[in-house]
Amino acid sequence: MKSNSVPTSLSRRMLVSTLAVLPLIGSLRSKAALAQGDQLPSWNDGAVKTSIIDFVARVTAQGSPDFVPPAERVAAFDNDGTLWSEHPMYVQFAFMLDRVKALAPLNPEWKSKQPFQAVLDEDMRALAASGEKGLVELMAATHAGMTSDEFAKIVSDWLGTARHPRFKRPYTEVVYQPMLELLAYLRSNGFKTFIVSGGGIEFMRPWSERVYDVPPEQVVGSSIKTKFEMRDGRPTLFRLPEINFNDDKAGKPIGINAHIGRRPIAAFGNSDGDLEMLQWTTMSGGVRLGLIVHHTDAEREYAYDRQSHFGKLDRALDAAAANKWTVVDIKKDWKRVFAFE
Amino acid sequence: MKSNSVPTSLSRRMLVSTLAVLPLIGSLRSKAALAQGDQLPSWNDGAVKTSIIDFVARVTAQGSPDFVPPAERVAAFDNDGTLWSEHPMYVQFAFMLDRVKALAPLNPEWKSKQPFQAVLDEDMRALAASGEKGLVELMAATHAGMTSDEFAKIVSDWLGTARHPRFKRPYTEVVYQPMLELLAYLRSNGFKTFIVSGGGIEFMRPWSERVYDVPPEQVVGSSIKTKFEMRDGRPTLFRLPEINFNDDKAGKPIGINAHIGRRPIAAFGNSDGDLEMLQWTTMSGGVRLGLIVHHTDAEREYAYDRQSHFGKLDRALDAAAANKWTVVDIKKDWKRVFAFE
Repeated sequence: MKSNSVPTSLSRRMLVSTLAVLPLIGSLRSKAALAQGDQLPSWNDGAVKTSIIDFVARVTAQGSPDFVPPAERVAAFDNDGTLWSEHPMYVQFAFMLDRVKALAPLNPEWKSKQPFQAVLDEDMRALAASGEKGLVELMAATHAGMTSDEFAKIVSDWLGTARHPRFKRPYTEVVYQPMLELLAYLRSNGFKTFIVSGGGIEFMRPWSERVYDVPPEQVVGSSIKTKFEMRDGRPTLFRLPEINFNDDKAGKPIGINAHIGRRPIAAFGNSDGDLEMLQWTTMSGGVRLGLIVHHTDAEREYAYDRQSHFGKLDRALDAAAANKWTVVDIKKDWKRVFAFE
Repeated sequence: MKSNSVPTSLSRRMLVSTLAVLPLIGSLRSKAALAQGDQLPSWNDGAVKTSIIDFVARVTAQGSPDFVPPAERVAAFDNDGTLWSEHPMYVQFAFMLDRVKALAPLNPEWKSKQPFQAVLDEDMRALAASGEKGLVELMAATHAGMTSDEFAKIVSDWLGTARHPRFKRPYTEVVYQPMLELLAYLRSNGFKTFIVSGGGIEFMRPWSERVYDVPPEQVVGSSIKTKFEMRDGRPTLFRLPEINFNDDKAGKPIGINAHIGRRPIAAFGNSDGDLEMLQWTTMSGGVRLGLIVHHTDAEREYAYDRQSHFGKLDRALDAAAANKWTVVDIKKDWKRVFAFE
């Protein structure tokens, strides 16, 4: 299972690169949307919006051959690039770099030791040159060596002060308004919404409920190993510098099966990391919705696809055409990208 | 982490042994129970029932300092010996033995090859002598080598025909009526109920919703590794003969953290395998409920504790006294054990 080998995939996902900015260019009112008031106001009318509303109408219509009981209405959402922005780099990657800087005073040797030196010098070439091995060292130094509770607090504190470099707002505000509406729309139709992300499960859980209304038990992600132990008479889970599971690519169906135990009937992604999740969800008979967010709007957000290192969309874009998945063209299909616009 | 080493723990849990049958030998009406009608009719009045009802009343009382918001009302239930009977052997162990017999015609060499020969000859001494290594071989031969969907069907088919050797009923009927009431009672008070079992997660999910009203996504258990692959153009998850996670003992808090992402406020177990889950749940400040089902009723069910090989209750029984966990004495506290009585 090469595609599931952790260091390789992590580095493919996370290695810093120059940002590929490829600007691209892009109505029909649904009866269903009109009938219950438009629950997707940030989506422009058109084939994409219609495909979503029609899917929901079909699987929720009592007596219809396509009816799916509420318990089986499972929807899986990728996070980076699908619910929040993953450019100019994955948010968790920015967190890792900031943590190295914050911990540097306690580790004076980092000034002259790679890959730490590269981070401190903001030398992205040297960082990229440190490869997978460097990335694993950085992850271990910043994501392990504390309890799960302590890590959750570190993440929350960081999110409280860190700002997106372009939008100058907390990362938790750089989330896609149309996707928030879609999450709520599905839930109002009896769906249970899950996040299924290549990002760290414990990096997302501290804020997923507040930001997405997705509780921690509905977050699936990558993880490192933990160890249970009593410390000063209190039970703790201590985070170890060892990868446990990589919830990306072929890992996504595995993570879905492990955590959810049933196959989603709708899946939402934006990159090749979501390909297998979309296959697993849609290629099983029955009415299914596979949707890919294609970042086409450099003006309001970013434009990237086949050449991007963060959120590369290549094979999955080809598969979308072959499998009739819905492809969102942000420029054309989203009336508004962020709530703060 | 010796306590989390998989083959050791699995064999300790599962190695066949002669059954230790140790026969052993209450009323105060709760206002809360009276107020909403008795939702726990199979529980005799007494300190145990009162401790459950008082706990629920405290954490659900709006404005009380002990109030817990519904989203955080997580309750974790062990399965074997807590929700259904684990004697004379773990149900999954019985399944494994039956599967060996069912597969024997396809594997003629098993007739003279341990540990298979021991199973086919029903030679429990030889089986025990095959130790952990034998157990792992049996697990691999019976639990791996098929897709997840196929395994779910094998489990469902087996449960449809297998009968508990003493009660002559499907195993899914040999479930504790008072615990079914407790699950429903907690849910009616805003709790989300999870199963957290040392048993196989994919062994429980095919029937957990029907029997316990616990959906697959709220089942946590032990697992083997799976591999995603396209077969004949269809995405599949194939079960590999390799342990992924052992959700027992110190593994239970790890499994809880991985799947649920928050700490339960109530945990229910019956054996030393549940000790760490009970510690993790109750030793964190706040009003918490830890409960141990003590099997004391050889007449209506079974009586076992410190000397038992299936569901040994020794250290956890001592810890219950030290930590003020509620201990259910089945003989005394349960008016009815099974619905079919």
